[in-house]
Amino acid sequence: CRQVSKAAAKAEVEFDYDGPSMKTTVPGPRSQVIEQLNKNVAAVNFFCNYEESRGNYLVDVDGNRMLDVYTQISSIPIGYNHPALLKLVTNPNNMSAFVNRPALGILPPENFPDKLTESLLSVAPSGMSRVQTMACGSCSNENAYKAMFITYRNKERGYSAPSVEDNTSCMINQAPGCPDLSILSFMGAFHGRTLGCLATTHSKAIHKLDVPSFDWPIAPFPTLQYPLEEFVRENAQEEARCLEETEDLIVKWRQKGKPVAGIVIEPIQAEGGDNHASADFFIKLRKIATKHGCAFHVDEVQTGGGSTGKFWAHEHWGMDDPADIVSFSKKLLTGGFYHKDELQPYRIFNTWMGDPSKNLFLCEVLNVIRKENLLDEVARSGKALLNGLYALQVQYPGLLSRARGQGTFCAIDVCDDATRDKILVRTRDKGILLGGCGQQSIRFRPSLVFKEYHVHFFLNVFNDVLAEFK
Amino acid sequence: CRQVSKAAAKAEVEFDYDGPSMKTTVPGPRSQVIEQLNKNVAAVNFFCNYEESRGNYLVDVDGNRMLDVYTQISSIPIGYNHPALLKLVTNPNNMSAFVNRPALGILPPENFPDKLTESLLSVAPSGMSRVQTMACGSCSNENAYKAMFITYRNKERGYSAPSVEDNTSCMINQAPGCPDLSILSFMGAFHGRTLGCLATTHSKAIHKLDVPSFDWPIAPFPTLQYPLEEFVRENAQEEARCLEETEDLIVKWRQKGKPVAGIVIEPIQAEGGDNHASADFFIKLRKIATKHGCAFHVDEVQTGGGSTGKFWAHEHWGMDDPADIVSFSKKLLTGGFYHKDELQPYRIFNTWMGDPSKNLFLCEVLNVIRKENLLDEVARSGKALLNGLYALQVQYPGLLSRARGQGTFCAIDVCDDATRDKILVRTRDKGILLGGCGQQSIRFRPSLVFKEYHVHFFLNVFNDVLAEFK
Repeated sequence: CRQVSKAAAKAEVEFDYDGPSMKTTVPGPRSQVIEQLNKNVAAVNFFCNYEESRGNYLVDVDGNRMLDVYTQISSIPIGYNHPALLKLVTNPNNMSAFVNRPALGILPPENFPDKLTESLLSVAPSGMSRVQTMACGSCSNENAYKAMFITYRNKERGYSAPSVEDNTSCMINQAPGCPDLSILSFMGAFHGRTLGCLATTHSKAIHKLDVPSFDWPIAPFPTLQYPLEEFVRENAQEEARCLEETEDLIVKWRQKGKPVAGIVIEPIQAEGGDNHASADFFIKLRKIATKHGCAFHVDEVQTGGGSTGKFWAHEHWGMDDPADIVSFSKKLLTGGFYHKDELQPYRIFNTWMGDPSKNLFLCEVLNVIRKENLLDEVARSGKALLNGLYALQVQYPGLLSRARGQGTFCAIDVCDDATRDKILVRTRDKGILLGGCGQQSIRFRPSLVFKEYHVHFFLNVFNDVLAEFK
Repeated sequence: CRQVSKAAAKAEVEFDYDGPSMKTTVPGPRSQVIEQLNKNVAAVNFFCNYEESRGNYLVDVDGNRMLDVYTQISSIPIGYNHPALLKLVTNPNNMSAFVNRPALGILPPENFPDKLTESLLSVAPSGMSRVQTMACGSCSNENAYKAMFITYRNKERGYSAPSVEDNTSCMINQAPGCPDLSILSFMGAFHGRTLGCLATTHSKAIHKLDVPSFDWPIAPFPTLQYPLEEFVRENAQEEARCLEETEDLIVKWRQKGKPVAGIVIEPIQAEGGDNHASADFFIKLRKIATKHGCAFHVDEVQTGGGSTGKFWAHEHWGMDDPADIVSFSKKLLTGGFYHKDELQPYRIFNTWMGDPSKNLFLCEVLNVIRKENLLDEVARSGKALLNGLYALQVQYPGLLSRARGQGTFCAIDVCDDATRDKILVRTRDKGILLGGCGQQSIRFRPSLVFKEYHVHFFLNVFNDVLAEFK
């Protein structure tokens, strides 16, 4: 780093800076000039110097170096410019994977099956040995929904060939070929912004406004009261209410002639405000899906990849048969979904179907996670973070509440959204990047190399900022 | 190349092999073994050795080297392992772009605006100076549709803020927040396979079957009779009929309470069978869109990038104001869409919004296209190809018909689909890769470095194959 030669020297060994270094408020003058010159970049926070960014620290074009506890909306698994990933790019054996992007569904590279085994299949969720890669999170969920629809109709047809009427009516978007099937989703959910995904997203109006949608059932997601140990009975009742209403909706939509082919849910509603539910809730929900012949799709786009302390958040439920489909993207670097054998994917297709160069990176990321025991680190850092948040909400009772989390996948509520937004800006100007979610929450989404000492550093700065708002 | 040291030596200079070299039928034994071992790869043609592939030649794992006239479903712009692209990967200045994928909508790299100017904006369609990158073709069209819906409703609201009812109803997928708007598409069209795109795709039943859809209007696309010069009057009548029905559908859907917010069309229907229409048809259609307040979206995902002899196929229409939105992917290496200033994209967002490393490649591709005058080459090769196809359909009148094309973006019909498929396999075993499209067409989709001598070589082999089917 040009500005901090000492830190750079240290980073040679540890591949991380030793702290933030702020030159200006953010966005700084240089970021602002670049933005003013451009009409093709709309919602930019600031411009980044990714060459100088390293480990947990994101450097901007004004030379500000910030501890990144948001990591590109939770999509940087092992920090910036990790040496293992840089090495991969410079390896001449990998050049061809970057330069020749194949139509993966028909003409895969020779090593693709091995690389799948080494990467995605080595972390396959319980009960699943098949995976389909995709280019992004939205495409992953869109195609997962299609797999559920196709499976549902295949069963209805008794696995026989589609009728002439099926084949002709579908060409003009009509039933029975394009059947009136539905996906059940939950209020507060976020599953992406393409038209199919958006019909199951219910986090913010601005995401959905003005876009045509489907008449699909939307169940309530439990609103838990915190601290959990004080509201055991109330929360159990709340979860029971939501499960009951879910089952009612499945029956109602079947009666309406729009049967529920699948249920989609996040293990923790992220964009919608870091809303948690108990393992018991998910276990019972999975049983309801099975009972009513609905496929059960767990969307791990934001929760997957290790930040809850397990590789998949749904592993915390402790089930052998947690889902029929698990979708992913973000920290996995490639989109895609795992599925059970029954959900035959032979009709899921597009030109690229992912990008094999991303699988190469994922192999290295998984190697680093294993070699450095990063899931244990996350559990340790997460415990320190959540305990720190508990302490802060006691210290600032009018300001903070509902500290919650799994691993470092944590959040806390602020008294109102305006104050939340001010706290985010003040914290950023002190060299720490955080993100908001839901109405008035702050979400913590560090990478997996976020250590206990990063937690303590963050808590100190956060404490200083909160004191200003007391 | 291990097998052909002489050819490899030549390729040092010309970066291309001097012809196919077949060791086995395709898929060869090694491809078959790899496929049998794997249940995660479904519709594979064969496995590839991308390291050994070069220029116009794709090499498979059995050492077969094939002249590629299909190029990964038309997505390889300047051949395999082009030296300019290899150099880019080995440039240390670019490493960070591969390793640190940003959330481009909020935290772009410093050079992103410049790279956009140098790449996508340097080839912006007439009347457009804004572009939004996306990860793939389907996402590009999905988000283009959203931009059209948002623009339509913004106009309806008189650009005032949405009502409370808008904001609450959209959260549960209901009007007025999620309005009953539609996109008009054409029979035979292909715009992608996610749920929004799929509602405008009408090429093959197997793409659409079992997936819920929208009640959106579908207009007839002209079915031209060939040779064009013999059916001038009939084809003009056919186009007039289609335009009239399009206008009727717009009125009808408005009356149904599902106004058409946008019209989407390919300049040449590719997947649907390489269906062409005249410039006059498109000019009149664009006027109908403007007259009825529908945005006009030209989908150049397959036609864009130079293979018609112009960078965009719609340039053949000769209009100053050809469209409101132009989407792209495939040969552009990144997905995305251009749009006019009026279609404000501030609400189009997702985590990745493309991949800046793909823009770096695109800069180099455009440099090569300019430096080597590849659009002129395409026009030259295309002329030779189309003339050759004309000659062959005269020679094999019972077998071939309807030779058609622009640049190298050519196609020809075979008497029936079974014969078409057999011809594709035979041609492949003789070292040339082609693709099918529509009911009984063969489509030609070489890269931009496909020269006249490649055309002549192809025509000779194709002639030999056709003679077997006479």
